Amino acid sequence: MREYFSRRRAALRSLLADSGVDALLVTDLLNIRYLTGFTGSNAALLVHGSGDDKTIFCTDGRYQVQSATEVPDLERVLDRASAAKLADLAAEKKLGKTGFESQHVSVEQHEDLKVRFDRVELVRTPGLVEQLRLVKDEQEIEALRQACAAADRALEDLVSAGGLRPGRTELDVARDLENRMLGHGSTGPSFDTIVAAGANSAIPHHRPTSAPLETGGFVKIDFGATVDGYHSDMTRTFVIGKPAAWQEEIYELVQRAQAAGCDAVLPGAEVSEVDKAARGVIVDAGRGEEFGHGLGHGVGLQVHEAPSLATTGVGTLSAGMAVTVEPGVYLPGRGGVRIEDTLVVREGTPELLTLSTKELVVV
Amino acid sequence: MREYFSRRRAALRSLLADSGVDALLVTDLLNIRYLTGFTGSNAALLVHGSGDDKTIFCTDGRYQVQSATEVPDLERVLDRASAAKLADLAAEKKLGKTGFESQHVSVEQHEDLKVRFDRVELVRTPGLVEQLRLVKDEQEIEALRQACAAADRALEDLVSAGGLRPGRTELDVARDLENRMLGHGSTGPSFDTIVAAGANSAIPHHRPTSAPLETGGFVKIDFGATVDGYHSDMTRTFVIGKPAAWQEEIYELVQRAQAAGCDAVLPGAEVSEVDKAARGVIVDAGRGEEFGHGLGHGVGLQVHEAPSLATTGVGTLSAGMAVTVEPGVYLPGRGGVRIEDTLVVREGTPELLTLSTKELVVV
Repeated sequence: MREYFSRRRAALRSLLADSGVDALLVTDLLNIRYLTGFTGSNAALLVHGSGDDKTIFCTDGRYQVQSATEVPDLERVLDRASAAKLADLAAEKKLGKTGFESQHVSVEQHEDLKVRFDRVELVRTPGLVEQLRLVKDEQEIEALRQACAAADRALEDLVSAGGLRPGRTELDVARDLENRMLGHGSTGPSFDTIVAAGANSAIPHHRPTSAPLETGGFVKIDFGATVDGYHSDMTRTFVIGKPAAWQEEIYELVQRAQAAGCDAVLPGAEVSEVDKAARGVIVDAGRGEEFGHGLGHGVGLQVHEAPSLATTGVGTLSAGMAVTVEPGVYLPGRGGVRIEDTLVVREGTPELLTLSTKELVVV
Repeated sequence: MREYFSRRRAALRSLLADSGVDALLVTDLLNIRYLTGFTGSNAALLVHGSGDDKTIFCTDGRYQVQSATEVPDLERVLDRASAAKLADLAAEKKLGKTGFESQHVSVEQHEDLKVRFDRVELVRTPGLVEQLRLVKDEQEIEALRQACAAADRALEDLVSAGGLRPGRTELDVARDLENRMLGHGSTGPSFDTIVAAGANSAIPHHRPTSAPLETGGFVKIDFGATVDGYHSDMTRTFVIGKPAAWQEEIYELVQRAQAAGCDAVLPGAEVSEVDKAARGVIVDAGRGEEFGHGLGHGVGLQVHEAPSLATTGVGTLSAGMAVTVEPGVYLPGRGGVRIEDTLVVREGTPELLTLSTKELVVV
């Protein structure tokens, strides 16, 4: 377990060398969690390019015990103003060029840090840890796997308990599902659960309301679980009662597009091409206008992170990236379908982490 | 309803005049919600000093319908890069000196904005909207009142349903309580609910575990509801079975300290003096070392916001501020008590929003 954290810090050190800095002040809490395992709400980390023995972690007194357990392998200091404290230490030790997370640090914090770092040169180095976080290691993938499994099982429970019956409200279903995820090891929903019944299913990011599920309508459910800080993200769309021909048609179309998208998830693939592989199926059916969002996104410590699988996305996939594939077709005023899985890019075929059926389930 | 938002913008305009800027680029989503009522996840607002007719709101296409409903009274433009779009418009209109929220804007965003604002002078103006948010208007206080009521009712339900019985785990109780709050109009917990049983109650910010409630132990519950984006925050401590003498002693001590703290919540009071009023009671009983945190904090769109009622706090209270008063006494390895209310500073006596009994409840 702990060796994953030291490996991540070692990988960061080679990026530091490439960026020409001797150390990096890490202030983003997710990046600190990624590099150390610390889960508290206040911390800063000064990663020294020469190794862990010169790397210093700072949190405040509330986390004295917790940080000793979670970060036993680094020098720890306690101070409420964690970043300021490390800046003072850096100045004291006359550190060389030091990078900071300029995409997270505010202009005001920067003004303060500049004064504290004194003669140490502070350099903008945005996105270094995020670059590492793009490719997940096996510990991260295991957490994602468990998060996906918690969501799969909760949905299975919900459906088999008759949770998707006419008369229940969107809000009822959302709460029920979130509770069932807790029962399967989730520490909380990955994001506000979307349950969209009937015509509401045509709204891509509908917020659940007291609207009831009705016979003949779609129910679109977009949700996820959190395990060890890692997020799953999945969508399934059901029909209450017998599906109409138009419902079967768009369901089957989205299902084909989703399969084409998954097939395109390969190391080396341009992210825009993965989007195109799925989108092309929908465009060819004359419904391109009814799929108005990107195909997917990275998932990890954040539920939305790089890479973006979209028309305007830039870059290529690498083995170990975790992404969603979630095409949809939305007919305003009538209903919409989205099908979404979380998967890991692997050599050969991707590893599907979301295992719920993608056949049209009639409840 | 809507007149509250235009009044807040008018109040902001007088701060702009005082700061010597002609406009303010607001990018913090809570500040945008405060000024406009918009609840989406992407927006920027350019508040012009001359009035609402020159003020522009920007969000992206996902929120076209929602923003038309939530922000009908301002010019709206749609663009995914909302702050960048408003910066471009500001440059185009050759705006005068423009302030930005330098405590929220990152160094990287600032670099981008500087280029876009072109010859318009960008000025660091941290904390202007936060300054307004310190004093709540009646619409905000009503939301806080409802959030506090949802928490009170959920706790009452929990206790009367026998939810605090030996054998239930801390996690069971936390989930149960969070669900009951949803049933009373909360859109979600204000923060991760703390349920701390037995010796765990001595840890001020304990995270619920699978530890069971046991006869003879304290159960400390710190939790809150969210209504219309406003947070409540309350703590109550129970005893399972007959309380021991030491439990009664520290309970009664915390109860007296809390009452003294509430009595000190008056317009014009120094925040450090309010802390002292409660802390003095505990210090006089020789337990000052066992109360290791501040007395309270402001609550509103954030669960922790200014002012800080602490030994090191600076500033005075004003009518309309909403604060918590939450002294505690913690005996490591044995147990701890905290009692916390949310209240509003008023002329004369404060308005108590948390109405649950503070007598020692034995369950």
